[in-house]
Amino acid sequence: MKKLILITNDDGIEASGIDFLISFLKPLGRLVVVAPETGMSGMGHAVTIQTPLRIRHLQDEDGVERYTTNGTPADCVKLGLNQVLKQKPDLIVSGINHGSNHSINILYSGTMAAALEGAMQNIPSAGFSMYNPNPKIDFSFMESYVQQICQRMLDEGVPAGTCLNVNFPDTNQPAGVRVCRQSIGYWNEEFDSRLDVHHQPYYWLKGDFIVPESNEDTDESALRNGFISIVPVTIDLTANSALESARKQFQGL
Amino acid sequence: MKKLILITNDDGIEASGIDFLISFLKPLGRLVVVAPETGMSGMGHAVTIQTPLRIRHLQDEDGVERYTTNGTPADCVKLGLNQVLKQKPDLIVSGINHGSNHSINILYSGTMAAALEGAMQNIPSAGFSMYNPNPKIDFSFMESYVQQICQRMLDEGVPAGTCLNVNFPDTNQPAGVRVCRQSIGYWNEEFDSRLDVHHQPYYWLKGDFIVPESNEDTDESALRNGFISIVPVTIDLTANSALESARKQFQGL
Repeated sequence: MKKLILITNDDGIEASGIDFLISFLKPLGRLVVVAPETGMSGMGHAVTIQTPLRIRHLQDEDGVERYTTNGTPADCVKLGLNQVLKQKPDLIVSGINHGSNHSINILYSGTMAAALEGAMQNIPSAGFSMYNPNPKIDFSFMESYVQQICQRMLDEGVPAGTCLNVNFPDTNQPAGVRVCRQSIGYWNEEFDSRLDVHHQPYYWLKGDFIVPESNEDTDESALRNGFISIVPVTIDLTANSALESARKQFQGL
Repeated sequence: MKKLILITNDDGIEASGIDFLISFLKPLGRLVVVAPETGMSGMGHAVTIQTPLRIRHLQDEDGVERYTTNGTPADCVKLGLNQVLKQKPDLIVSGINHGSNHSINILYSGTMAAALEGAMQNIPSAGFSMYNPNPKIDFSFMESYVQQICQRMLDEGVPAGTCLNVNFPDTNQPAGVRVCRQSIGYWNEEFDSRLDVHHQPYYWLKGDFIVPESNEDTDESALRNGFISIVPVTIDLTANSALESARKQFQGL
């Protein structure tokens, strides 16, 4: 029985990253693509609840069913699972994102929101991203890595309530793969403040991403040293190490 | 020196929940409100990077500075920290949300995205939500709870990289407060499929929220039993318990 794989991304159906992903995964099973019509970068885990959703069936190509929606990446997975597919997929794969989703950037990431949707439904899921955001980069060198990671997920699954955040370093000759934890970073932000033609101010978000920790076992360190980072991530955001102190802090209320 | 408190929400500046929050927190410090112009439910941790942001300074009321933006809740915190405020606030409070943000709903929550933004910048932060989504509910009964929780955060802080997810049960006489962990649930979703006037299909997201686990130490259990749930949450999504098995699964790549 051929494996069923649902594919989505957050750069939209026309991004080259999703084309590479489709070509890599064709040998692994039957592919159904449900992706946003347009780029959805920075949408995080947004879902569409105030406007109706649409699905458009595109021309199938080479046995791959292709659909686009006006929804977010999370919407695409929900629509894929509930409207497009007739059965539960064996794997959900999101990407390949043009730009990194390592460290706390997972929280802003539509690519990873799609994978986390899979984790919520206990379907093995992964998001793939490339550190360098240049949309023209040739991702061919990733083929064997993406195939092997996805094949092992198909064969062995992943623990319930988790999925994989896979980031490629900015090189076409990765030093290898490191399974590691998420680094803790932050955006040092400023806004580019401009005046419009009516002399009214408007603001563009910009900033530098800073990772103050220098530990070797993080995705930041892996990427900096030319390794592909694989972080198993969870849908449980409980700060377990803070439970005891919080119990003391808020007792007697 | 008066404490400085940044307030936001995801139901928009006109929601009654933020008015209650402002009235509760006035005795605790100087308040600056930066909230979305309109409702932003379901926006998760979305940030605005493809359109410019605007800030509008509303009439200050009773010493409270009030601003609205066209951005998401996460944008509001970023704009608040970087454009509106001249100094780092002592506390960021988001809410009071009309509808629960317990369990994995934190991932869809603009209310909690705002609090997580604070956690990323190591500013004590909390999101407050009410289980019942009815926008007309009188939140007066929450006053002393919200004040005491926020005062203790001002006095003692919270651990770095964490914030609080506080949910009120659907009663105006809570049984008390429980510090607990996040429950693991999922949405059993379907889409309401309709035809538009051109006979084309469109879809509205709907569903039932299911929590299969019945453990007593979760937010779901606290709320079901009439308690206010306080979950300390982290910006580190690493599935620590899955690291070892993932190392084995992906070795040799």
